[in-house]
Amino acid sequence: MEHGGNIHKMKREKTIDNLIDFSANINPFGLHEKIKEAITHHVDDIVNYPDPDNYDLVTEISRRHSVARERILCGNGASDLIFRIVEAFRPKESLLIEPTFSEYRKALKRFSNIHTIESIYYDLDLLEKIKNTDVDMIFICNPNNPTGLLAEDLFLEGLIENAKENGITLIIDESFIDFTHSKSFIREAEGSIVVLRSFTKMYAIAGLRLGYLVSSKEVVEKIKEVSPTWQVSSLASAAGISAFRLDGFEEKTRELIGEERNYLKSNLKKLGFEFFDSSANYLCFTSHIKDLDAKLLNFGIMIRNCSNYIGLGESYYRIAVRSRRDNALLVNSLSELCKE
Amino acid sequence: MEHGGNIHKMKREKTIDNLIDFSANINPFGLHEKIKEAITHHVDDIVNYPDPDNYDLVTEISRRHSVARERILCGNGASDLIFRIVEAFRPKESLLIEPTFSEYRKALKRFSNIHTIESIYYDLDLLEKIKNTDVDMIFICNPNNPTGLLAEDLFLEGLIENAKENGITLIIDESFIDFTHSKSFIREAEGSIVVLRSFTKMYAIAGLRLGYLVSSKEVVEKIKEVSPTWQVSSLASAAGISAFRLDGFEEKTRELIGEERNYLKSNLKKLGFEFFDSSANYLCFTSHIKDLDAKLLNFGIMIRNCSNYIGLGESYYRIAVRSRRDNALLVNSLSELCKE
Repeated sequence: MEHGGNIHKMKREKTIDNLIDFSANINPFGLHEKIKEAITHHVDDIVNYPDPDNYDLVTEISRRHSVARERILCGNGASDLIFRIVEAFRPKESLLIEPTFSEYRKALKRFSNIHTIESIYYDLDLLEKIKNTDVDMIFICNPNNPTGLLAEDLFLEGLIENAKENGITLIIDESFIDFTHSKSFIREAEGSIVVLRSFTKMYAIAGLRLGYLVSSKEVVEKIKEVSPTWQVSSLASAAGISAFRLDGFEEKTRELIGEERNYLKSNLKKLGFEFFDSSANYLCFTSHIKDLDAKLLNFGIMIRNCSNYIGLGESYYRIAVRSRRDNALLVNSLSELCKE
Repeated sequence: MEHGGNIHKMKREKTIDNLIDFSANINPFGLHEKIKEAITHHVDDIVNYPDPDNYDLVTEISRRHSVARERILCGNGASDLIFRIVEAFRPKESLLIEPTFSEYRKALKRFSNIHTIESIYYDLDLLEKIKNTDVDMIFICNPNNPTGLLAEDLFLEGLIENAKENGITLIIDESFIDFTHSKSFIREAEGSIVVLRSFTKMYAIAGLRLGYLVSSKEVVEKIKEVSPTWQVSSLASAAGISAFRLDGFEEKTRELIGEERNYLKSNLKKLGFEFFDSSANYLCFTSHIKDLDAKLLNFGIMIRNCSNYIGLGESYYRIAVRSRRDNALLVNSLSELCKE
């Protein structure tokens, strides 16, 4: 399985109807009533082409981050923007720090000689290694997917400085940063620095596809040049606008995620599983139980097998942080399997 | 204005609220109640990632055209697929017959030396000219946008034969073919032949973005290789499935379009306008009234200025075929302007 979240295939092939999906990292609060209302309210608008400039949505994003409209570009999900960035720059030499999100490699491999450094931690040691690699483009995922680990601020600051000095296109993918208490680097997204953000995880609209990037005006123009005229559906746009007008939803989510992540961590620990100290809404752990993902399916639970990540072995799995009810079910199932 | 249908910008800048949009070629019946229901019914599903295989939608398309599932690829609108095709093949030499839909050129120009033949009619004379041009990729729009003219069957058959013999990737864009009584070439979409189709015009879901292509299994695989994992939103997918289950909607639409196209043609003729003999749901005409688009805005009517099409002059405009009420309003407004 290339990504988490393909419950469609699972349901088709396994004829399981009530799978609890721990493989996709979606806000456990689910779709907010106000976002749902906004979508339903705008259904009649779909007879018209979407606004190619996404004017109202860009206005909302511009206000939230206090960045100029010209520095914002919306896309059909963050993954769409990953491909657009690569197509716009066509880097000859690129760098990935593995394990990380697999779409970077998929997008890069057509154009680029991909250098790989394996590193779990994003610290000053890694920074030195990166500085010694001569490349045109670097993708950094912060917090990283699948580990949930945050980059050190000094690492990112050094990386940004290095990228600016050497004209490297540096993409910082902050798709999950809203779930952490960590600082966003959007304010640093100037020159050749691109910060990528997603609506789909925090606002539980993965099916609708919506992401955006912030960078310099020049980078935004360059990517627009290689993009179809209409990228974002009018319903995704309506959902995004209403999402950014919610009051306190992100804070409430971070609180829940914090509590539930701790609950999962302490129970995984009790059961003898080792895990990375994630700050995100997912946890990556190693299992002493073989074929854990297949065994959990018998409990109606779907988790992400991470063995196809470069730099992770067969025993690695990723789980989303969900509601207490779901998390308790997972913990109980793991506990059952540990007894066998 | 690069395309028709950007009423968003118009509304922002002109503060006109009730514009009748003749610039976008959407089914005058509007959004069908059953498609609307399907979308509303599936809103809760958007918390999940879309099915990357679009299994259910592909099944529906496969049934409609009696082509194997492996030969179908869905995209975020036909324009998205145009870009994906070009990115997959990166043709060194390509050919466009102008005037035609501008997204082909936008997609090709990054990779390709674009040869241009200006021709209004797609006949055996044009076929000879094309055969004498050595290229890797050709886009043909049938019926053509903006003229609404259909290619001759013998032209397309010869073109397909020539493309197959010489390994040319030939894309036949049938985005508007459903509005005509003409034959689709989907059954011929084998080897290097690609047929492109759109849901957005016939089913009035332009804001949702949904298109698909039919080709050989090899071409579909090649394009998938260069595409992000998730392309089609789950609501677009639900809309597409329900659209293909409607009973008689396309036939009823073709009848209305036929009647209304005749109404518009006979009235344009009476008022002294010349037009191409369109078979589609839009009409391209020349105007003896200067700045006609700007003048019609005063009547609350937006039409497509075609002066930016290669091969068309300043006096060319395109109008959608709409309902009798709207068409009569347009005719009356034109009549008023002719008196001035």
